[in-house]
Amino acid sequence: MLNNYKSGYSLSQCFYKDESIYDLEVKSIFHKHWLFAGHTSQIPNIGDYFLFEISEESIIIVRNKKNKIKAHVNVCRHRGSNICSEKYGNKKLLNCPYHAWSYDLDGLLITARDMPSDFKYKNNNLHSVNVELIGGFIFINLAKKPLSLYNFKHDLNKTLDLFGLDDLKLVMHKSYPIPANWKLAVENYNECYHCNPSHKEFSQIHMMGTDNKVFKKRKNDFHEQNKGKLKFAQFNCYYDYAQTGQEGYQYDRNPLKPGILSGTVKGSPAAPLLGNLTEYDNGASELMLGPLMFFLLYDDYIVGYRFTPLSLNNCVCDIFWFVRDDAVENIDYEINNLIWLWDTTTLADKEIISNNQKGVNSSFYSPGRLSLMEDFQKSFLDWYINTLSSYTGD
Amino acid sequence: MLNNYKSGYSLSQCFYKDESIYDLEVKSIFHKHWLFAGHTSQIPNIGDYFLFEISEESIIIVRNKKNKIKAHVNVCRHRGSNICSEKYGNKKLLNCPYHAWSYDLDGLLITARDMPSDFKYKNNNLHSVNVELIGGFIFINLAKKPLSLYNFKHDLNKTLDLFGLDDLKLVMHKSYPIPANWKLAVENYNECYHCNPSHKEFSQIHMMGTDNKVFKKRKNDFHEQNKGKLKFAQFNCYYDYAQTGQEGYQYDRNPLKPGILSGTVKGSPAAPLLGNLTEYDNGASELMLGPLMFFLLYDDYIVGYRFTPLSLNNCVCDIFWFVRDDAVENIDYEINNLIWLWDTTTLADKEIISNNQKGVNSSFYSPGRLSLMEDFQKSFLDWYINTLSSYTGD
Amino acid sequence: MLNNYKSGYSLSQCFYKDESIYDLEVKSIFHKHWLFAGHTSQIPNIGDYFLFEISEESIIIVRNKKNKIKAHVNVCRHRGSNICSEKYGNKKLLNCPYHAWSYDLDGLLITARDMPSDFKYKNNNLHSVNVELIGGFIFINLAKKPLSLYNFKHDLNKTLDLFGLDDLKLVMHKSYPIPANWKLAVENYNECYHCNPSHKEFSQIHMMGTDNKVFKKRKNDFHEQNKGKLKFAQFNCYYDYAQTGQEGYQYDRNPLKPGILSGTVKGSPAAPLLGNLTEYDNGASELMLGPLMFFLLYDDYIVGYRFTPLSLNNCVCDIFWFVRDDAVENIDYEINNLIWLWDTTTLADKEIISNNQKGVNSSFYSPGRLSLMEDFQKSFLDWYINTLSSYTGD
Repeated sequence: MLNNYKSGYSLSQCFYKDESIYDLEVKSIFHKHWLFAGHTSQIPNIGDYFLFEISEESIIIVRNKKNKIKAHVNVCRHRGSNICSEKYGNKKLLNCPYHAWSYDLDGLLITARDMPSDFKYKNNNLHSVNVELIGGFIFINLAKKPLSLYNFKHDLNKTLDLFGLDDLKLVMHKSYPIPANWKLAVENYNECYHCNPSHKEFSQIHMMGTDNKVFKKRKNDFHEQNKGKLKFAQFNCYYDYAQTGQEGYQYDRNPLKPGILSGTVKGSPAAPLLGNLTEYDNGASELMLGPLMFFLLYDDYIVGYRFTPLSLNNCVCDIFWFVRDDAVENIDYEINNLIWLWDTTTLADKEIISNNQKGVNSSFYSPGRLSLMEDFQKSFLDWYINTLSSYTGD
Repeated sequence: MLNNYKSGYSLSQCFYKDESIYDLEVKSIFHKHWLFAGHTSQIPNIGDYFLFEISEESIIIVRNKKNKIKAHVNVCRHRGSNICSEKYGNKKLLNCPYHAWSYDLDGLLITARDMPSDFKYKNNNLHSVNVELIGGFIFINLAKKPLSLYNFKHDLNKTLDLFGLDDLKLVMHKSYPIPANWKLAVENYNECYHCNPSHKEFSQIHMMGTDNKVFKKRKNDFHEQNKGKLKFAQFNCYYDYAQTGQEGYQYDRNPLKPGILSGTVKGSPAAPLLGNLTEYDNGASELMLGPLMFFLLYDDYIVGYRFTPLSLNNCVCDIFWFVRDDAVENIDYEINNLIWLWDTTTLADKEIISNNQKGVNSSFYSPGRLSLMEDFQKSFLDWYINTLSSYTGD
Repeated sequence: MLNNYKSGYSLSQCFYKDESIYDLEVKSIFHKHWLFAGHTSQIPNIGDYFLFEISEESIIIVRNKKNKIKAHVNVCRHRGSNICSEKYGNKKLLNCPYHAWSYDLDGLLITARDMPSDFKYKNNNLHSVNVELIGGFIFINLAKKPLSLYNFKHDLNKTLDLFGLDDLKLVMHKSYPIPANWKLAVENYNECYHCNPSHKEFSQIHMMGTDNKVFKKRKNDFHEQNKGKLKFAQFNCYYDYAQTGQEGYQYDRNPLKPGILSGTVKGSPAAPLLGNLTEYDNGASELMLGPLMFFLLYDDYIVGYRFTPLSLNNCVCDIFWFVRDDAVENIDYEINNLIWLWDTTTLADKEIISNNQKGVNSSFYSPGRLSLMEDFQKSFLDWYINTLSSYTGD
């Protein structure tokens, strides 16, 4: 199946319908790459936790006693019960509700009654997974030896600092369940060939939604005008361009429509400027990290996009909206104005992606030719096939 | 599994429970035989369309600019999205809602923006499938080289002309989803052994619902009395009796109960006489074409019956009611009187068929002996096993 | 998979997720062991029946004309329809609603119209399954040659007689569907390691819910005090301790908390003393028979517990509450007081078991060490693996 892939074409049906492909994706993608779990502002106090769930996995993201963020597999080492069943809360200890085995916030087993004398506590701590923070963004990785974020940080730390990532607060989180394979959702995010026909709201705000030649000329001019500025860095170390052992990432800044300052109904500011930014520059930055998360950085707010596979034919898109943490609702920002663009756009995409799944289920479907505007999507597919082909087990 | 079939017995459990059997049926039956898509009166104007859906396939049935009926696979040649998501409507062009590729009503690709220079429009038209009209009935076939309808038309054109098939209108369409394998539904339609115990409404209208010997004698007399009349033709070129390369068909006329003129609550007329018919003859004709569609022709209305597999364990029965196209509702016919018999009967059958599926799921189930009144059902099963056994791929 | 089992640890994930394992369980366990179908007081009159359903099987439990309890597979020998679709009722004959084949209450085929001349009635009786009564409890077995109940009866008849099993009535039956593999439910019932943390109601009534050492001492004292009494018999012929060819069983009597007389809100009597009992002894007996049913015998009421697999990931727990048949509701017993303990406890267990299934679905789950208080659970798992390993077909 993998050998029949033709670069520049969409995938064969089997990649959207076969359980064996999904099983391979779990191991070679979901358990290998960095995932966007959430934000530190969701768990401000010691013992605060929330659950991050992907496919069959449930991960407890918790703030420990030393104010560090930890991530533990939500599975008791005794007989496998979920430890936390509520999606979020506050715990002094991670107590299994079944037989009361208890773990501390670092996942160390503290109490297990009536065990055989040769039972070793130290071998029965919760499985923990890797956590990295970029500003307040919490990233986790289920692999034993995760891909490195060194290059990403090296290249982008200063640029991201401009947006004050340390001083954000989450002001809205919405989930959009999509009855389709996760790749159809990611492919949809990866190209703007569909923006013009499908997203009039997006197209009135972003240049990318207009004619491709017009967009490219405007983008060139935009970068020419802002040459040398940190904010206008460009890194394409994504997909197959990632260095071996490094997580893939991409950063670029794109022009908005003339006169537009931010992603709001009228293009006017959404909230106070982020970080140390002192002016609106009529642009928005795109940041991608790993295959399942995407960020859009306006000058005054940030949108975090996450695609999470649940099963072969179901995924969920989560959107997180952030403003600077000292902004005051209804004075500095108005929530409906803030979420309008990406809520509207994502609801439309949910329909589009569902229709796409229905079509690829047909026996008449065969891989179709990609357009010139789907280059990034092509990179994704090349990388995807390469990733599955080269997977050799843990 | 196929070798264990014993003619005169019901099928083994695997034929109702195994996905591999269903996959074989898709290829060897659903994609080979003619299917009843609907009626021209559903799409009277240029650009009118409706969707016909079977298993994983969605087909756009549309009236083109030359007033011809066309059938296109509802899958964009770009990345496979469904083109029409509404079940019916009117379109000037078949525009894909995803990336705005557009096709004309004949399925020819008209617009695809920003494609590579070597992209060939002519290789990217919508897949179209074969369409044949018999009167206003629209039949489609998903095969590249469909079975011929030549014999069917040759044998039955004149007989069917009597019923004015060119001048009908659809006055009601109802769908009955059935949580059972499609064959249990077709088997149910194929025998009247269950009519007497299960369908008192049917049995008060149709002789076939009474004792088998009484029915056979009455049928003989009926045909004797009407010898030589076109309406009383008899063709049994169905199932294994079909000539190689020809679609199977069957036509016969059966007596109604004494004094009954049509399939209505009191047996009185339902609507004006069809075509050029000048009198009620106390009979009703049965017409079968392909394995999934059945028609019942009373003197004043026609019922179209369609069984559509959706998945291994789900199918849908659709019923279409037709009267002559100049009949006026509430003056010439009353809709509840018209649909009463087959709506009532089908609701009862839906329960029967669901119960049958539950029973055949038991490990204690084994093929049971068919009665003398299930001869036609026996033919169906013989043909079914033969069809699967002899399938050699496309 | 079976070879990787390590005694003293929980099972590997595959035993909770693989369809092939479930298929093997159907044959080697559900179709081999005795099942608790219900109670004679549910069908007091000739022709009364109820359905017992397990996995894909539906069994008609009916009282025949000679006042005997019979069990027939609810599948017509003709084309496999379910014969009874209502969960309970009264029938003079078992009439198939499809083609009106009719069977008498003993399952003998009485009427089948229009069959071929060589059709043999005697070969087309309903499949019947074995029935045994213990008092009014109805046990059935789907195997052709069921395991013997001889040892069970021999060892326990006199003890059970004390509780007046012949003179009970069913006063409540509740079903608790559980979205989990059946073994997680049985494992939950099989150990009281979770009682203290999870079941405060149980722990205020039963000594077993307290600290293990305290419980063991109290139990020793309790048996010491009652040495030689029939009610204090102990038989552990369960799981791998069952003799070859004999159904497994276990009987033991456990102390309640000081001052507690019965399993009610305040520990006061629930109903009149059972059978010929003349006093409360501050204890309750546990009786287990086969792998899927459990009884708890207080001095004044009996709880029957049944776990029924429906599919790989769904089962149902049914609870039946019995009091002596001459007790009068609201005078001799109050139903809410009677069901409080086990209704509350089972609702809590339903949550626990569902959470357990979620956790074992994780790829991070691995078999965990059992505690000293899970010895009986260990026996269950040892027996389970042994049963699957040694299954050689019918």
